Amino acid sequence: MPVTSDLLLLRDKLRVFADERDWDQFHTPKNLCMAMMVEAAELMEHFQWLTPDQSCDLAAKNRDDVKDELADVLLYLIRLSDKLGVDLLEAALLKIEKNAKKYPADTVRGSAKKYNEY
Amino acid sequence: MPVTSDLLLLRDKLRVFADERDWDQFHTPKNLCMAMMVEAAELMEHFQWLTPDQSCDLAAKNRDDVKDELADVLLYLIRLSDKLGVDLLEAALLKIEKNAKKYPADTVRGSAKKYNEY
Amino acid sequence: MPVTSDLLLLRDKLRVFADERDWDQFHTPKNLCMAMMVEAAELMEHFQWLTPDQSCDLAAKNRDDVKDELADVLLYLIRLSDKLGVDLLEAALLKIEKNAKKYPADTVRGSAKKYNEY
Amino acid sequence: MPVTSDLLLLRDKLRVFADERDWDQFHTPKNLCMAMMVEAAELMEHFQWLTPDQSCDLAAKNRDDVKDELADVLLYLIRLSDKLGVDLLEAALLKIEKNAKKYPADTVRGSAKKYNEY
Repeated sequence: MPVTSDLLLLRDKLRVFADERDWDQFHTPKNLCMAMMVEAAELMEHFQWLTPDQSCDLAAKNRDDVKDELADVLLYLIRLSDKLGVDLLEAALLKIEKNAKKYPADTVRGSAKKYNEY
Repeated sequence: MPVTSDLLLLRDKLRVFADERDWDQFHTPKNLCMAMMVEAAELMEHFQWLTPDQSCDLAAKNRDDVKDELADVLLYLIRLSDKLGVDLLEAALLKIEKNAKKYPADTVRGSAKKYNEY
Repeated sequence: MPVTSDLLLLRDKLRVFADERDWDQFHTPKNLCMAMMVEAAELMEHFQWLTPDQSCDLAAKNRDDVKDELADVLLYLIRLSDKLGVDLLEAALLKIEKNAKKYPADTVRGSAKKYNEY
Repeated sequence: MPVTSDLLLLRDKLRVFADERDWDQFHTPKNLCMAMMVEAAELMEHFQWLTPDQSCDLAAKNRDDVKDELADVLLYLIRLSDKLGVDLLEAALLKIEKNAKKYPADTVRGSAKKYNEY
């Protein structure tokens, strides 16, 4: 059977990882949420002094670090969702639907001003 | 062809979503990173006054909000990775491997003290 | 004349600091806010795997780092307020008054449950 | 005796505020740090879709909200420092000195490139 879900694949790998290290005791939602936030900030550090345009073109060296930080956020997010018993794919699909209703394309198209007010 | 990757499925949905609203202009890595951080903080707000134990058992009402916040973080993370040209699954698998070398199970098992020092 | 405001003293020092380095050009509110957030996360990293009780007793080595991170958050906050033309002391005094009305002592006293619902 | 320090003035007010509400039990460094982070993110939300230039000119309505958020960050920062027994003014003055050595004006002046590498 082919792997049909990256998210579940990663969830399972993280379960084994934590289990092998007996780290489950530290993985409360409160702690995992903090850890995810810290990783997100490490990612943001790469962009803080760049103009928005500059942020599109990272230097090669930074790119590898940025890839690692993106991965860290994802891994903590998956682990956090797992500990909370949340199916991330289902939650994400549902949220896209909600957003589509909240921001109808015809109403919000292409305006930063409108965008900010929604 | 069956969809074999939920991360790519979500990436494609988000591309369409932004395209329909002409929001690509606002989706610089710098801005997306800030937006992801803001969603992560909204998630964290649910846990800030809870004990770690309490954070494991969210009330039903909070659970729905928490699901939405988890989804928001994932969606911005996927969008950000897409704009940076990063394959999230590949990055995550690579990071798990790196972490396994950095934290050998035999060395770090079950100790908060060791855990903190790594 | 005695110094009557730490906040203004620090604000003035930061103005000179930025001016001497010609860094004013990078100190937009958007950028300063990101930088402050990054420092706050570096601070939070010290607490992420600790229990709430453990977080009260930091090891001596960590204490020095924590002091630096607390200072970093304050310095960026003062600089950000300065660039936005906000008087931090006035804003803080006003906010304490607002909070006092929002959370009347008699209503919210001593209950985590009530605390969370406000 | 005149109040000679606004940071100490605010610290004392926050002590009374927490005491009157019996909230000291929730004010562990871990929790306060999370709360401060959440407030910093609420502040950042105002800037996330703005260009750096736009972030300098906030609309009047947003200005009041931004003032409140700046105050919230300061109040939690002062409370957190108090619980950790850290003198914020002393820490901030020391950090400015450290930064002055780390970023000598002659070396780093006016270059975003240099700025990022430091």
